[in-house]
Amino acid sequence: MADTSGRKRRGGGRAGNAARRVKAGIIDQMPWRLPVNMDRPTEPLTEEGVLAIHDGAMRILEEIGIEFYNTEARDILKEAGCSVEGDTVRMGRDFVMEMVGKAPSSWTLTPRNPARQITLGENHILFGNVSSPPNYWDMSLGRKVPGTREMCANLLKLSQYFNCIHFVGGYPVEPQDIHASVRHLDVLYDKLTLTDKVAHTYSLGKERVEDAMEMVRISGGWSHEEFEASPKLYTNINSTSPLKHDEPMMDGWMRMARRNQGLVVTPFTLAGAMAPVTMSGAVAQSLAEALCAVALAQYIRPGAACAIGTFTSNVDMKSGAPAFGTPEYMRATQMTGQMARFYDLPMRASGVCAANVPDGQAMWETSNSLWSAVQSGAHMVYHAAGWLEGGLIASPEKFIMDCEILQMIQRYMEPEVWATGPDEIAIDAIKDVGSDGHFFGIQHTQDRYTTAFYQPFASDWRNFEAWEAAGGVWTPERAHQIYQDIIANFEAPPMDEAIREELAAFVARRKQEGGAPTDF
Amino acid sequence: MADTSGRKRRGGGRAGNAARRVKAGIIDQMPWRLPVNMDRPTEPLTEEGVLAIHDGAMRILEEIGIEFYNTEARDILKEAGCSVEGDTVRMGRDFVMEMVGKAPSSWTLTPRNPARQITLGENHILFGNVSSPPNYWDMSLGRKVPGTREMCANLLKLSQYFNCIHFVGGYPVEPQDIHASVRHLDVLYDKLTLTDKVAHTYSLGKERVEDAMEMVRISGGWSHEEFEASPKLYTNINSTSPLKHDEPMMDGWMRMARRNQGLVVTPFTLAGAMAPVTMSGAVAQSLAEALCAVALAQYIRPGAACAIGTFTSNVDMKSGAPAFGTPEYMRATQMTGQMARFYDLPMRASGVCAANVPDGQAMWETSNSLWSAVQSGAHMVYHAAGWLEGGLIASPEKFIMDCEILQMIQRYMEPEVWATGPDEIAIDAIKDVGSDGHFFGIQHTQDRYTTAFYQPFASDWRNFEAWEAAGGVWTPERAHQIYQDIIANFEAPPMDEAIREELAAFVARRKQEGGAPTDF
Repeated sequence: MADTSGRKRRGGGRAGNAARRVKAGIIDQMPWRLPVNMDRPTEPLTEEGVLAIHDGAMRILEEIGIEFYNTEARDILKEAGCSVEGDTVRMGRDFVMEMVGKAPSSWTLTPRNPARQITLGENHILFGNVSSPPNYWDMSLGRKVPGTREMCANLLKLSQYFNCIHFVGGYPVEPQDIHASVRHLDVLYDKLTLTDKVAHTYSLGKERVEDAMEMVRISGGWSHEEFEASPKLYTNINSTSPLKHDEPMMDGWMRMARRNQGLVVTPFTLAGAMAPVTMSGAVAQSLAEALCAVALAQYIRPGAACAIGTFTSNVDMKSGAPAFGTPEYMRATQMTGQMARFYDLPMRASGVCAANVPDGQAMWETSNSLWSAVQSGAHMVYHAAGWLEGGLIASPEKFIMDCEILQMIQRYMEPEVWATGPDEIAIDAIKDVGSDGHFFGIQHTQDRYTTAFYQPFASDWRNFEAWEAAGGVWTPERAHQIYQDIIANFEAPPMDEAIREELAAFVARRKQEGGAPTDF
Repeated sequence: MADTSGRKRRGGGRAGNAARRVKAGIIDQMPWRLPVNMDRPTEPLTEEGVLAIHDGAMRILEEIGIEFYNTEARDILKEAGCSVEGDTVRMGRDFVMEMVGKAPSSWTLTPRNPARQITLGENHILFGNVSSPPNYWDMSLGRKVPGTREMCANLLKLSQYFNCIHFVGGYPVEPQDIHASVRHLDVLYDKLTLTDKVAHTYSLGKERVEDAMEMVRISGGWSHEEFEASPKLYTNINSTSPLKHDEPMMDGWMRMARRNQGLVVTPFTLAGAMAPVTMSGAVAQSLAEALCAVALAQYIRPGAACAIGTFTSNVDMKSGAPAFGTPEYMRATQMTGQMARFYDLPMRASGVCAANVPDGQAMWETSNSLWSAVQSGAHMVYHAAGWLEGGLIASPEKFIMDCEILQMIQRYMEPEVWATGPDEIAIDAIKDVGSDGHFFGIQHTQDRYTTAFYQPFASDWRNFEAWEAAGGVWTPERAHQIYQDIIANFEAPPMDEAIREELAAFVARRKQEGGAPTDF
């Protein structure tokens, strides 16, 4: 970053002007805002269907139970009156519903820049970048390679650059060139300095969670009391389906609950593999796995900021490989939306695909998943930009292409599109133009021309001849160029130098202490 | 066709077996069925909004009027009590609503194969192939070329092959190697022999419409009386927006109404160009242009089979070029859906994109338009497979890729996906598997394995390494291969030889007579 700013500051004359022009915006994107989803959700389930899935989830918790591989969690749930046999915890529906009833239906997350505060719930739909792929692919490489810190930082820059990305997830690609013991320190440093949006921590051991909370606290210049006054970061845990919560995830979950931070639990229930082959069964199991974690958090801290996620998809019948963005995935997402409203909890969904490269398949699978998130009333959409190969690859071209879809979804939600006042019905304009003219030049058009329609940045709307004359560039190549331009001209959001130094010192100290323990 | 079958019949031994294997199905596609859209439509407009747009459409018809460049139509409307000044016809809302009230809310179209009958209305959503592009593009050519009869026939074969295509539109590509005077004869001959699905006629002069009705009548072996007993083919007319109906379109419209054939009217109201820059104004104008044609048809034949189409999109703010699959397009489609229900008329929408090649942009634009058709409750989706460059290019790869999306939409609508009976909630299966096992091998999975999930034919769900080892083929290249395989192994649906000869004789006679008059 310092290098880039340095170059720019040194630039003068024509080059300097060009740099300033570019700095004003590599692309013409929509402003930062928290979209409001006013569409009535698509609800495949009848009321009886909702109750049947609820009953299924409760029976799983009551009769079958969930394995909690965490002694402390079991002790707490035993104290709460649950049945504990070995690792298996069974809990009655009265307890579960009493605990779930304590969870707020919406809550905020406040990052170091308060202007980037987000609200989970209240009909907002918010988008986050791809998280956790071990590998990276881009058009210039043309192959799949292990992620590095630089690739990770570049994807963080995209996450900051695009206003349609509202929060930052886990590592946008796993930086395998940093040792796992200190990886969380370096990436979180990059994340907190390259972005000013809401950050995330993996629940992978107490050291990582505590380090993350401390670094986020430092980034905001908050006292410990201020930090705990409202959620400043969040974790997302996955159950180990079927029916297990593992030790470090539960540890992080409870630590974050105690300090009033954001809690998202997302079982990965792949129908036919880790869950029943029938979608309502997979949804019921997913809810059971999620709700017992919510109950635990609410027992520890009544009113803890919880959300339930859906990651219910299906396997490929031929190979057993996970499939994404399928019709079954869409319906499972919509069904989970109905259940989240039944439990009055914010909901997380995802932008996903099985495709290996940013081609047509990638876009129909991603479109299916993103539109099902809209249709389900989801509040938080993970992996909404940059994901390929079922989450095993992060791609900057896919990131750019997905952001075009996200912007269209954001525009789709702006009520002026369907306004029906007299000025919009525009009888006078229609009368003026009559049957002979056109609407291009008239005042009614001139007054609205610049804001009337969505303006794309990655789509090419020219006709074939003009497109061909300009090189005949297909979408992923266009996206690659946009990616390069954004990275070349990226400027980090401002940060107080004292805070940056405090963060750097914290990272240095924790590295000296060895970071988080690993077994390698 | 004869050539292909001939080659196959001569084939024996290993090659013959391979051919037979292939003939059983080049791809594993879903069966022919008429999907039922049980989703509650997405309705951006309030009740007041619906009434405001209705009032706008009525004021356009009452105060501004529509130009009817057809003497007979004007005479009929004058007789009906409308005000006629020059070419301008104004009609009161009472008359319009009385006439619209006579139109059926659903109607059937029966092609020569009665098993391919379709119902427009009643919550069905049906898909048709791309229609009317002058040009063609495919991966092997890699460039845009004028359409030919062979390209047109190949796209007709795709339209027949795919069960997710329910009706055939106009020329899937304009065969520019056939003189315009006889083009309709050759293409309709190809259409009626290569497909057994519902056919269409352009309303481009009385000869073409009369020839089409006669050829369709012959194809079904119907008497004139049987032909007129229910709709056997349909026409789709476009108003010349703003506010004009031209001579030949009106002529075909009235001819088809008199003989009880299907009537679809679809204004092309591009907001900011041929309609107001505001979407509700563009929708109101589109409805005015459509409803006056419906009123004319109902006056001529009460109960005539009418549907209104929407083709309201917006221009690119920079170039004035049409844009498709935009957020504004989606909302206009949903708004038109609300209005179609207000008027209780079947509705047509489209699958559209501005992209020039079958890439990511093509798929997000097409996905947006197709999902908005689903959300709007549209009954008939034109151009649902094969369209590029705003309708100026037909592409077989795009056709194949679109059919994957159409099949997913069809699967999305099958209620077993969200069934919630005890067998689907599957508590026993979850209990049996517990927290240790997986669901792959259990009986509950085995019993449902082959039908539980959508099975793709163009998507590649393998992981990156397996996909790369198999050549690393991107979606359009895969689609190209599928296209080649389908064409190489295509078999036309059976047709009585006497009917084929009668059709051929009709074409020969009409060619001898000069076909339809042209001015060149």
